[in-house]
Amino acid sequence: QEKEASTFSPNISYGSKGFEFKSGNDLFSLQFQSRLQFRFATPRDQDPLSFDDFREVPQVVFKINRARLKVGGHAYKSWLKYYWEYELARGNLLDFRIMIEKWDFFRVKVGQWKTYYTRERVISSGKQQMVDRSIVNRPFTLDRQQGVEISGRVETIVDFSYYLSVLTGTGRAVLENDDRNLMYVGRLQWNIFGKEVDMSGSDIPVHESPAGIIALGAATNQSRYTRFSSAGGGQLEGFESGEAGQYKLKQYLVETAFKWKGFSWQHETHWKRIDDRLNGTVSDLEGSYFQAGYFFGNIWDWFPMPLELAGRFAYYRPIYLRGEDKQDEYGLAFNWFFVEHRNKLTAECSYFKISENEFDEVGGARFRVQWEISF
Amino acid sequence: QEKEASTFSPNISYGSKGFEFKSGNDLFSLQFQSRLQFRFATPRDQDPLSFDDFREVPQVVFKINRARLKVGGHAYKSWLKYYWEYELARGNLLDFRIMIEKWDFFRVKVGQWKTYYTRERVISSGKQQMVDRSIVNRPFTLDRQQGVEISGRVETIVDFSYYLSVLTGTGRAVLENDDRNLMYVGRLQWNIFGKEVDMSGSDIPVHESPAGIIALGAATNQSRYTRFSSAGGGQLEGFESGEAGQYKLKQYLVETAFKWKGFSWQHETHWKRIDDRLNGTVSDLEGSYFQAGYFFGNIWDWFPMPLELAGRFAYYRPIYLRGEDKQDEYGLAFNWFFVEHRNKLTAECSYFKISENEFDEVGGARFRVQWEISF
Amino acid sequence: QEKEASTFSPNISYGSKGFEFKSGNDLFSLQFQSRLQFRFATPRDQDPLSFDDFREVPQVVFKINRARLKVGGHAYKSWLKYYWEYELARGNLLDFRIMIEKWDFFRVKVGQWKTYYTRERVISSGKQQMVDRSIVNRPFTLDRQQGVEISGRVETIVDFSYYLSVLTGTGRAVLENDDRNLMYVGRLQWNIFGKEVDMSGSDIPVHESPAGIIALGAATNQSRYTRFSSAGGGQLEGFESGEAGQYKLKQYLVETAFKWKGFSWQHETHWKRIDDRLNGTVSDLEGSYFQAGYFFGNIWDWFPMPLELAGRFAYYRPIYLRGEDKQDEYGLAFNWFFVEHRNKLTAECSYFKISENEFDEVGGARFRVQWEISF
Repeated sequence: QEKEASTFSPNISYGSKGFEFKSGNDLFSLQFQSRLQFRFATPRDQDPLSFDDFREVPQVVFKINRARLKVGGHAYKSWLKYYWEYELARGNLLDFRIMIEKWDFFRVKVGQWKTYYTRERVISSGKQQMVDRSIVNRPFTLDRQQGVEISGRVETIVDFSYYLSVLTGTGRAVLENDDRNLMYVGRLQWNIFGKEVDMSGSDIPVHESPAGIIALGAATNQSRYTRFSSAGGGQLEGFESGEAGQYKLKQYLVETAFKWKGFSWQHETHWKRIDDRLNGTVSDLEGSYFQAGYFFGNIWDWFPMPLELAGRFAYYRPIYLRGEDKQDEYGLAFNWFFVEHRNKLTAECSYFKISENEFDEVGGARFRVQWEISF
Repeated sequence: QEKEASTFSPNISYGSKGFEFKSGNDLFSLQFQSRLQFRFATPRDQDPLSFDDFREVPQVVFKINRARLKVGGHAYKSWLKYYWEYELARGNLLDFRIMIEKWDFFRVKVGQWKTYYTRERVISSGKQQMVDRSIVNRPFTLDRQQGVEISGRVETIVDFSYYLSVLTGTGRAVLENDDRNLMYVGRLQWNIFGKEVDMSGSDIPVHESPAGIIALGAATNQSRYTRFSSAGGGQLEGFESGEAGQYKLKQYLVETAFKWKGFSWQHETHWKRIDDRLNGTVSDLEGSYFQAGYFFGNIWDWFPMPLELAGRFAYYRPIYLRGEDKQDEYGLAFNWFFVEHRNKLTAECSYFKISENEFDEVGGARFRVQWEISF
Repeated sequence: QEKEASTFSPNISYGSKGFEFKSGNDLFSLQFQSRLQFRFATPRDQDPLSFDDFREVPQVVFKINRARLKVGGHAYKSWLKYYWEYELARGNLLDFRIMIEKWDFFRVKVGQWKTYYTRERVISSGKQQMVDRSIVNRPFTLDRQQGVEISGRVETIVDFSYYLSVLTGTGRAVLENDDRNLMYVGRLQWNIFGKEVDMSGSDIPVHESPAGIIALGAATNQSRYTRFSSAGGGQLEGFESGEAGQYKLKQYLVETAFKWKGFSWQHETHWKRIDDRLNGTVSDLEGSYFQAGYFFGNIWDWFPMPLELAGRFAYYRPIYLRGEDKQDEYGLAFNWFFVEHRNKLTAECSYFKISENEFDEVGGARFRVQWEISF
């Protein structure tokens, strides 16, 4: 009924966030973008988790792996931003957050989003360098949580960014906590060359001057879960469905990233302790990934400019009650960027190696092709 | 292929229903709005229903309580309106309705929506005065149903509004009825001061002249359910999952509402009889809520104008087979309206008291904070 | 951040695909349309499948049968098209596809959509001539699958269209195949009068010159399923939940369609063999439907122009292990087109007859009214 904002000279544009509608006074904006990730995989798409996974019937699959609707903008004030993202293929609300971004050194976020803890997880699945995340992501990510975050970038003698979050800590989409315990997450990042490295894989568009960061992170939580994913809270291999507050988690992270003249580097090393307060047992997990890519067209004339070559090595070393596992991942990817990350084709070969409790090793290869497109 | 409506001088605006796109000839319009309700609650969010609920582990929870996408407008004719609302966090289609609103005294609605029966339920969760509805809502609401409604406002010697609905009567989102019996709902409302009271809590924007209504409602239904909610049909405490047509419901309502100069009042009294036709038993439920609020800035200079103080008392007296319950709710809320109901912060304290079958009473408090924002 | 496409003179229009937003350079477009299908049915909505279905309690139901959000357009190039469709009432992603349509004789499609096999299934539920599809659709449709399709229209001495698809073959929304076997589908269509017959029921808008096609189709698949629907893979009556690769399907199709001066004709005849490789048994299914409609206003002055009369006969003859069934459907429909298929009212009477294994026949009637509206 009441319509305080009158008709304005329309302002429509198409940019990296899709179609954007803006009010003339710039107090309101709305962005609308869809995204499709279409994937071919064989002999299966999922990373192997155990010996058994190598013994399953091989598959050949074409599939819509991700289908997203993204809506964002600002309202009432240019610094009061909103964003939501819906996974259409599975019917999941992924992000829904409001951000107060009036000052660069002090920003507030409320809602649900990917906890600002690890670079690999925070990078959108549409802006990855390889077809998907490494084997390290599953055990260590905090994934999406609901709560409040303050963050900012401070440019003093050193240029650094900080992120502090207080979250319910029971994963995506929950309506209840299991107890009084919340999740606390902190991240401190040194912007070595006086600028942040944006959250995307590959050096595209190319950085003419170097950008690099070193970050430390820490998180603690107590809940019924030992891991988190887009599906919400869950359990790692060997952990049973937990009771309220059964598992106390503590985890740490060292992360580096660097981009310059077509070269990109990113790495994370994780430690995580799971304290089972019901059974009085403790498990320690450790893992790392190292990833680099380069547009060789920069040094070789015959090499096409839009083509990037990238490689990854990752290891995961969990020490559970039942013993010690060793998991390794080796990957090689070719990216052809039609329109940066918004329209790209990736072909990837991976090799996985698992050994459980000093048993003989098992290994296997995987081949995937992916078309990632936003519009 | 065929494109009868040609390009028109674009007409875009931002108003209380979000971004609006209109055709130059005004035959078509499209509104697009998102809404987030972010809530903190302790020791739990849900109203207690029984003794046991007071004994559970206390919680602390941050959560996205509601995340809505609202799309509406008109098509082909200015009086042929459409509206749909999707709950993104739970993946539920809430409303989807077409409205023929050519005449004010005779309107037709088809589809699914909140049955026009009680004021408290019809008021959007984004326009409430307290953080959420009273304890009376759960047992008495007809919630969303699918069917047909005719309604209108008649200005004769008395100014009144009527609503008559024929509905499938098995709740939201069903694709079948359980039997031949439909739900019938009627509501007659006297607009005392010659205007309707809009369906929202709090007197904002302020009414300079008084608006008030007295309404009577009645409903009857036969199905397998004893209550309805956003989740569809369900059962009240003590009722078992029913067979087709097992429960025959009859219910009545008296409702009042009034708004003037920053003061608002609303009240409902409900009676409901559940006739279990399989077991031959009858249960009688009764309940009321009384709610009032005021912007004290109108009389006290030192009191901030955007701040409203509101209070509620509600009681629920079910007489089941197993005996008689008594449930009471006392609530106090502070609302800070940044932009009317579209951007507001609410802090609320409640106290609940339950006594079952003359047992000793149990009571407990709850504290909630909520940020409600539409954009 | 990077925003390569600058603000452009806005171009907004409303057409048969809803509101459309276009960039000035025409490299990007976005269409946004909603659709509601509201249905009344008695004594039930679903087609009967067996004797038992005639014995169930009769129902009376009002319901939202389909509630769709459709988003499409093109991006980066005018020939790089996208389209997705979401079923709001059930929370299902139906279509999500990218189409390279640079050349008419060679088009590529990737994603998920209704496999281009049978006319009846490919015609949108919003553009049907009767209230819904015939009894032949359930056993023979390939429904939606994920994969890749090439197609095109070739205008040589004969004018023909071809469609070749390679699909995962385990239905809508799956993330895995059950084995290495893919689904292969081919369709060859002769465009008799030098133009295709568009995929919609009824001759509206009217064809001034005749359009007709004869098509042949074939498909093969091996999976755990014997049939497909919007819900994904499933089983026909008498088939148990299958193991990976248990059922090998081969099926064929002959199809005709014709439209001219208000008259429309469409027909399909299907054969399908189900080879149960685990139990070594074979089942053969056969079925056809024949459907015609006419706007009698073209020959009788007293007959309203927007009113179409349409009829259908369909039979289904499965030969399973357990014996032979006979199912027949007779239907008569009245369509009132307010705005072509985008706003129409349909009333339909049907009669169903089933005989199982030479038992006595059972029959029954059904009455449905449907309002179909897009906006």
